[in-house]
Amino acid sequence: MILDVLDAFRAISASERGNTRLAYTEWEDRARDVVRDYLRALPGYVMVDDAAGNLFVVPEEATGVDGRPIVLIGSHVDTVIEGGWLDGTLGVAAGIASLSTLGADPETPLPLGLVVFRDEEGVRFNSGLFGSHVFAGLCQPTDLAKQDRDGCALGDVVPNPAGCLDYTPPVTPLAYLECHIEQGLRLEDAGARVGLVTGMVGIRRYDLTGVGQANHAGTTEMRRRVDALTPVAEVIGKLPVLVEDLEDTVITCGRIGVRPGAPNIVPGTAQAVVEIRSGNSETIEIVSGRLQDLVAGATPAISGGRCAELSLTGIVDVPPTRMDGDVLRDLASVVEGLGLPHLQMPSMAGHDAQHAAFRCPAGMFFIPSLEGISHAPDENSRPEDIEMAAQVMTAWAQAVLARLA
Amino acid sequence: MILDVLDAFRAISASERGNTRLAYTEWEDRARDVVRDYLRALPGYVMVDDAAGNLFVVPEEATGVDGRPIVLIGSHVDTVIEGGWLDGTLGVAAGIASLSTLGADPETPLPLGLVVFRDEEGVRFNSGLFGSHVFAGLCQPTDLAKQDRDGCALGDVVPNPAGCLDYTPPVTPLAYLECHIEQGLRLEDAGARVGLVTGMVGIRRYDLTGVGQANHAGTTEMRRRVDALTPVAEVIGKLPVLVEDLEDTVITCGRIGVRPGAPNIVPGTAQAVVEIRSGNSETIEIVSGRLQDLVAGATPAISGGRCAELSLTGIVDVPPTRMDGDVLRDLASVVEGLGLPHLQMPSMAGHDAQHAAFRCPAGMFFIPSLEGISHAPDENSRPEDIEMAAQVMTAWAQAVLARLA
Repeated sequence: MILDVLDAFRAISASERGNTRLAYTEWEDRARDVVRDYLRALPGYVMVDDAAGNLFVVPEEATGVDGRPIVLIGSHVDTVIEGGWLDGTLGVAAGIASLSTLGADPETPLPLGLVVFRDEEGVRFNSGLFGSHVFAGLCQPTDLAKQDRDGCALGDVVPNPAGCLDYTPPVTPLAYLECHIEQGLRLEDAGARVGLVTGMVGIRRYDLTGVGQANHAGTTEMRRRVDALTPVAEVIGKLPVLVEDLEDTVITCGRIGVRPGAPNIVPGTAQAVVEIRSGNSETIEIVSGRLQDLVAGATPAISGGRCAELSLTGIVDVPPTRMDGDVLRDLASVVEGLGLPHLQMPSMAGHDAQHAAFRCPAGMFFIPSLEGISHAPDENSRPEDIEMAAQVMTAWAQAVLARLA
Repeated sequence: MILDVLDAFRAISASERGNTRLAYTEWEDRARDVVRDYLRALPGYVMVDDAAGNLFVVPEEATGVDGRPIVLIGSHVDTVIEGGWLDGTLGVAAGIASLSTLGADPETPLPLGLVVFRDEEGVRFNSGLFGSHVFAGLCQPTDLAKQDRDGCALGDVVPNPAGCLDYTPPVTPLAYLECHIEQGLRLEDAGARVGLVTGMVGIRRYDLTGVGQANHAGTTEMRRRVDALTPVAEVIGKLPVLVEDLEDTVITCGRIGVRPGAPNIVPGTAQAVVEIRSGNSETIEIVSGRLQDLVAGATPAISGGRCAELSLTGIVDVPPTRMDGDVLRDLASVVEGLGLPHLQMPSMAGHDAQHAAFRCPAGMFFIPSLEGISHAPDENSRPEDIEMAAQVMTAWAQAVLARLA
């Protein structure tokens, strides 16, 4: 069943360049419709959107502040630009499969539900993990003020902006379970089929902006120009050096642009996003300090005469999070019982589970990604591993429910 | 009058961010309509578009292969993205003013006409000086194959693609005269009001592309990633060094972008345009060689494990051009006669005059730019200098016509 669900997601917005379903667009809405279509007939269940538009498919008796507490399985269905077919959707499809199996008996309704978080990728509004961020009760007015490239604010597209700031979850969670593709090569390197996630990487993003003076690229002598791009490019070119002595730490510039953006104009502004990830808070501080030094030191060295003004502004700061020990032990028992080779590992990607952990004990597992490719059209996993994900998730949910009963 | 004409151009597409009238768009068409409106009533004159859509306003007797040879005044009305109000339009407005003064007598029609070249800036198709390039008889199939960002080809928007390749000019030019803003600070530095242009800078543009592997910016370890941007950025950051020992030579990266372009994805491709300008062909070769060395040397130094593949491809190559000695002497006599402080100087910008020089003796003069700003909304000149431009152009056209009579 899980492969059918994933094919239904893939059929939306698929192209040679992969899947593009940015948050709060028609494309994300269509993926949410797929979820509704699969679970519409589940007896005793209702569908509820919260203030951020996160979709909950839960037993009717679980809704409201006095509702019966439940275990939630979840993930997201939005994608990056030109992304793959499994990132996020694997966890939602595994949840649909588990719920269809475990929740289909109207005589013994289990306290088990599905949550489909909005805007996990954060591409459109620079707002990664936004839906679960609201669910965690962390949403601030500055989050809602974030704008996309067309000047549209996040607060203008969420169903209930005030409700995001003063948030009440539509259900009371006992635990949160998520499965996801690894998006790396550790499982493959270790010959493991399941990764038991011990904790989630912290993510810090900076906006690096250079402000100079747009001018004619021929008549403006080198000594007179104030080129916004040159110092920004010098910084970007040196980023890998900042982490070369550090374990489990990465730094990336995935977005850069200049204005006005013509070959015959000296750039007046240059803007880039620099992202640091590490499982260790202190390491993030160390790399941030090195980045600040690099930016401060680069400016005078380059532009000859006048210097573009560089600024480094924090735009995202998600601290590392630990997964719950009991939920992790339940998972370990399940995979050992199934005889699956496994590995305990940190997650270098941020995931909704780290925000769900603000509400309840949370846990997560990975299945192997072929060649470690993700956030790209070639993202893939073996079909038997995808089927296994649904099997592990169902058994894990049963184990957690049994322990909490 | 010239200020009125310039205001009419400025009224098209003006905003806080300056003027944007890219070639072969509705906005360039509207500027051409302004030209037609001003000259429609000129007795004995007709309006002719050539194969590239260059607009000629000429005496009827001058048209066709056997037409009376004439002196042409001209420039362009397209702009860069968010450009100024005088670049190109000054020369066209000065031509309109001169033609209105000198060509208004139906009894003694002078062999004098106006040409409004298309697509001088080349922003949309990476095709600088395209209209005059066709007029020079230099157009090649590769020029027409150039595409804009939406995949639209230049050959699809010109009125007559075959006629661009096998070009016959609609008139026989005796000489070509152009005036333009300086777009620099040499006149201001020297206290001069007119720059007599001795020759035109050569322009060479390269596409610098890095090809790596798009992947997740968290789970892809530094040693495993193939980041397309890092080596491209390192090259861009060092560009100023390549010309620091060279006079009258500039190097610029005015456009850069990555795909997919999200903060949490390692760039799979990075693309930049690098432009070299110098009045000296040998200098252009020297800088090109240094750039090739920089690109070749940068690749292995950066990415740690695997390296993005860098390629440097020539996309524009316009050699330096000398202006005609006789036309320059006529101009010098005129400005000396008017008592205007002047300066002989090379042009660091490419201009249509360098292509007109393939057809006939060509000359050019500059007026001062305030603060040297151009290709930007703040581009400006003193009103008295703008009025002077029309006066000098009219007197210069008379002098050239008298000498050639």
